[in-house]
Amino acid sequence: MQIGFIGLGAMGSAIARNLVDSGHTLQVFNRSAGPAEPLRRAGARIAASAMQAARGADVVFTMVADDAAVNAVTFGEAGLLAGLKPGALHISMSTISVAAARDLAARHRDAGVGLVCATVFGRPDVAAARKLYIMAAGADGDLKLAVPLLEQLGQSVGIVGADPSQANLVKLIGNFMLSVVIETLGEACAVAGRAGLDPMHLVELLTGTIFNSLPYKTYGALIASQRFQPAGFQLKLGQKDNRLMLATAEALGVPLPLASLVRDRFLAARSHGAGDGHDWSAIALCALADAGLDRRV
Amino acid sequence: MQIGFIGLGAMGSAIARNLVDSGHTLQVFNRSAGPAEPLRRAGARIAASAMQAARGADVVFTMVADDAAVNAVTFGEAGLLAGLKPGALHISMSTISVAAARDLAARHRDAGVGLVCATVFGRPDVAAARKLYIMAAGADGDLKLAVPLLEQLGQSVGIVGADPSQANLVKLIGNFMLSVVIETLGEACAVAGRAGLDPMHLVELLTGTIFNSLPYKTYGALIASQRFQPAGFQLKLGQKDNRLMLATAEALGVPLPLASLVRDRFLAARSHGAGDGHDWSAIALCALADAGLDRRV
Amino acid sequence: MQIGFIGLGAMGSAIARNLVDSGHTLQVFNRSAGPAEPLRRAGARIAASAMQAARGADVVFTMVADDAAVNAVTFGEAGLLAGLKPGALHISMSTISVAAARDLAARHRDAGVGLVCATVFGRPDVAAARKLYIMAAGADGDLKLAVPLLEQLGQSVGIVGADPSQANLVKLIGNFMLSVVIETLGEACAVAGRAGLDPMHLVELLTGTIFNSLPYKTYGALIASQRFQPAGFQLKLGQKDNRLMLATAEALGVPLPLASLVRDRFLAARSHGAGDGHDWSAIALCALADAGLDRRV
Amino acid sequence: MQIGFIGLGAMGSAIARNLVDSGHTLQVFNRSAGPAEPLRRAGARIAASAMQAARGADVVFTMVADDAAVNAVTFGEAGLLAGLKPGALHISMSTISVAAARDLAARHRDAGVGLVCATVFGRPDVAAARKLYIMAAGADGDLKLAVPLLEQLGQSVGIVGADPSQANLVKLIGNFMLSVVIETLGEACAVAGRAGLDPMHLVELLTGTIFNSLPYKTYGALIASQRFQPAGFQLKLGQKDNRLMLATAEALGVPLPLASLVRDRFLAARSHGAGDGHDWSAIALCALADAGLDRRV
Repeated sequence: MQIGFIGLGAMGSAIARNLVDSGHTLQVFNRSAGPAEPLRRAGARIAASAMQAARGADVVFTMVADDAAVNAVTFGEAGLLAGLKPGALHISMSTISVAAARDLAARHRDAGVGLVCATVFGRPDVAAARKLYIMAAGADGDLKLAVPLLEQLGQSVGIVGADPSQANLVKLIGNFMLSVVIETLGEACAVAGRAGLDPMHLVELLTGTIFNSLPYKTYGALIASQRFQPAGFQLKLGQKDNRLMLATAEALGVPLPLASLVRDRFLAARSHGAGDGHDWSAIALCALADAGLDRRV
Repeated sequence: MQIGFIGLGAMGSAIARNLVDSGHTLQVFNRSAGPAEPLRRAGARIAASAMQAARGADVVFTMVADDAAVNAVTFGEAGLLAGLKPGALHISMSTISVAAARDLAARHRDAGVGLVCATVFGRPDVAAARKLYIMAAGADGDLKLAVPLLEQLGQSVGIVGADPSQANLVKLIGNFMLSVVIETLGEACAVAGRAGLDPMHLVELLTGTIFNSLPYKTYGALIASQRFQPAGFQLKLGQKDNRLMLATAEALGVPLPLASLVRDRFLAARSHGAGDGHDWSAIALCALADAGLDRRV
Repeated sequence: MQIGFIGLGAMGSAIARNLVDSGHTLQVFNRSAGPAEPLRRAGARIAASAMQAARGADVVFTMVADDAAVNAVTFGEAGLLAGLKPGALHISMSTISVAAARDLAARHRDAGVGLVCATVFGRPDVAAARKLYIMAAGADGDLKLAVPLLEQLGQSVGIVGADPSQANLVKLIGNFMLSVVIETLGEACAVAGRAGLDPMHLVELLTGTIFNSLPYKTYGALIASQRFQPAGFQLKLGQKDNRLMLATAEALGVPLPLASLVRDRFLAARSHGAGDGHDWSAIALCALADAGLDRRV
Repeated sequence: MQIGFIGLGAMGSAIARNLVDSGHTLQVFNRSAGPAEPLRRAGARIAASAMQAARGADVVFTMVADDAAVNAVTFGEAGLLAGLKPGALHISMSTISVAAARDLAARHRDAGVGLVCATVFGRPDVAAARKLYIMAAGADGDLKLAVPLLEQLGQSVGIVGADPSQANLVKLIGNFMLSVVIETLGEACAVAGRAGLDPMHLVELLTGTIFNSLPYKTYGALIASQRFQPAGFQLKLGQKDNRLMLATAEALGVPLPLASLVRDRFLAARSHGAGDGHDWSAIALCALADAGLDRRV
């Protein structure tokens, strides 16, 4: 299939590479040139703009940083909508706000172009291994085209519904729930630490039994050892998603005391030694510091 | 082995029955007579007091409601310590406070009797199926005797350490973490509900992927359907454990904002329709009510 | 003095009227025509735009709803900056964000026009009685012109400092503190109510003694009687200010758990019967509802 | 009048001295001998027990540390109830739990002795100056005897009601509200500090105007200057009262998110440098530390 791919960060590069390896013809575009080079060597063509990456494509993927970035590569003279042929499909994989996704959907409808939002859970190495969990939402006809492609990129594709923005909602809720797992583990390790029980041993006991799942294992180990670098998912990105979740919930009229608590943790974490580039699990430093157990990171 | 068993609630009865079925000789005691009858028919002897249940036993188990109950069956003229022979072992399975467990340990040491605290995760049907997760703590010599017995009762026995009270700490931390899972799911379902995304569908999408573990599945289904009866674990018991966790953390000098939030939820849940006998996941009613989505239970 | 006055809501009208009564020559502008009529009868001239209201003026006041409104009347072809003569002064009285005030200051500097931010505590009747508490900030030279004018409008003028935006900061902090007073009284009345102590009696006992100040008296009486209409200060405006405070603190790296709690209360209050037009003290309904004591408003 | 006075801490000594100076005949008792000596020199008789202090008295006052202490001096062979004549009156001024006060009331009724709970707001120097705010509750007949005496000790005597325990409730609510004032000022000073506005200047601006009352002035100055020693009211006593408030509200079924937040602050304050003996306003260190502004105390 003829595919455009826009946004070659760590996630985008891994996904684009898998599309090339699956035999698709790719035109890729990235704001800076460097990340496109390995894909060129693997057989992709390099486009000079989002518009050119979209030209002639059956499907164009975007995987960029935030609301502003997705708007920048979609709209305007050099945007993908200017390049896409009628009836083509845009698959938006970025973690963006529900409001931005809604706006995206409306403007694609006006332009006669399909839109599927397909958000992902998993880090770059997971993406490379085609093990992502993907949440897809869009009109039936659009999903019919998107799902077989997405199935080449992850271990499962969940169909959220017909409204593309709800894939973004599920992503934000998922990250919200992960942030609470982190805070929970921080508080649990603080109690253990003060009680003379090795936090790592606590984590092993619980994640070997009742909390036998990846989030608790991954973050439990990081927090018990206070090892917040290198980042798997950067604190500043986690903070951005927390902000999106709070804004989305506010627009819906839903108070979220847990997200509010985590919001304050993101801010306080800076005062306890964490920075933008630490792993977002560093917000657990707050619970540890309040118990007198933090080691400056 | 000659075993005393004290406390025949739903959990105690299931465990005692498994011990009988494994070929041990049991003397059982319960404050009220009724629950002992099925065990008598299965071959256990009924004792008239905790002291008599302990008499001649190599090991005596207790599985009772709270600090007061464990003290009542352990100490005094009719208590198990008065019946146990020197060198025998007491295995305390109740969910009690860390402070009570420490006191227990000190007084057993004085009495020359071993103590292992062995707390469990799992409900009565899980206990009956010998699928409990067990957390055991005690002196090496005592564990040598206890662990093979405990392995007959659950699917795993984690060794917490040499201080018996730490098995209680791990239990309280585990229940604390479960209570946060419940609150998280309540808030997540509130957002979904207001966004027009079926909460049950949200739960399925997330627990089929990144939150693929029993607590999220179990409580997610209950909360999405606002089905809080019959209780798997009663609200009043969850509230008791929350209280124990807060008291334990306070004694250790550890603030627990998540447990404080859950504490307030236990209280507010009553105003939103829940009672002592609802499942403890009914605290999710608070998040739903604050979003205007609660159905009176 | 020749004065322009832009923004004739309840507050603006009261202040503008006092300026006329003090003998100043006023040109007034309001987006809609109605509110200007009483001022015209009192002797003010009606301008067709903010620009015209500013033309020839020594000082132009603005008292409008929010960031967007202050920008709309300040910038552009019909904005006050296009009308003001060099060396004239803009006194901004609106409750706006610190970021917006900073931007305002920079652009006035560029335009060679002075800016004083002068925020006020007090409701329209207080403004009419010239009893406002005013917080003013700006360069020394600008304050020299502004303060004597402001002293005609309130009972005190506090000098915050040289950076105009800090007057907005003090206003936001003051409203934040008031919002916490409201929540505090809500929780206090909930305890009293459930204990069989008349909340109004509690409020009288405390505000007659240790909490002998206007905020506790005013809001205590409203909350104890659950009388949230008519609004002295609308819930939607209080919510706006809470949002501004959280955003300002976030930009400064300061977590504000109390403001986060109040944020959630603003959202939950809607589910417990309050609307945009209730007095903002209606957020106390949340504490009352969680205690089972709310009367639907 | 013949008066017994039990409990000669800083508060008790100041009050007892005022009673002597007003011409009453006092028999005083304190657990340790030292504090009684100045009163002896002022004309009081020293009793060897609470019982002896109460013997022959028309009224006996108690002003001791907590629930346990008030029970210790009231009941038993050497307790005041053993010494009081029928129809005499006990005025309990200690800050104790509502539950303890209820128990006290019931047992005084059984003993045919009157009980008035009369709690006070104010520090020792305020007590010495007869400027206390007093909250009194009890049966009409008992109040008739108590109030004229109490009016000699403070600047006002508020009548809470007929149930003595409600005077304790009002005291706990008052201290709860003060603790929230402290937290509010901590957060406000954190924002100001990070914004480059001198926290002391902020406090002066606000307490000179809209927050023109003693609690904001007193604590504002302490927090802005991070001056938490010497203690006006010790952190450990504030923490005790917070615990009593939470327990009382829990028994009434009332969630108190503000008190829960303050509870966590009392614990975290220790990790940020405060100890039992600091002024309780040191809990503001938490907000300051989370903003990176704390100076170790």
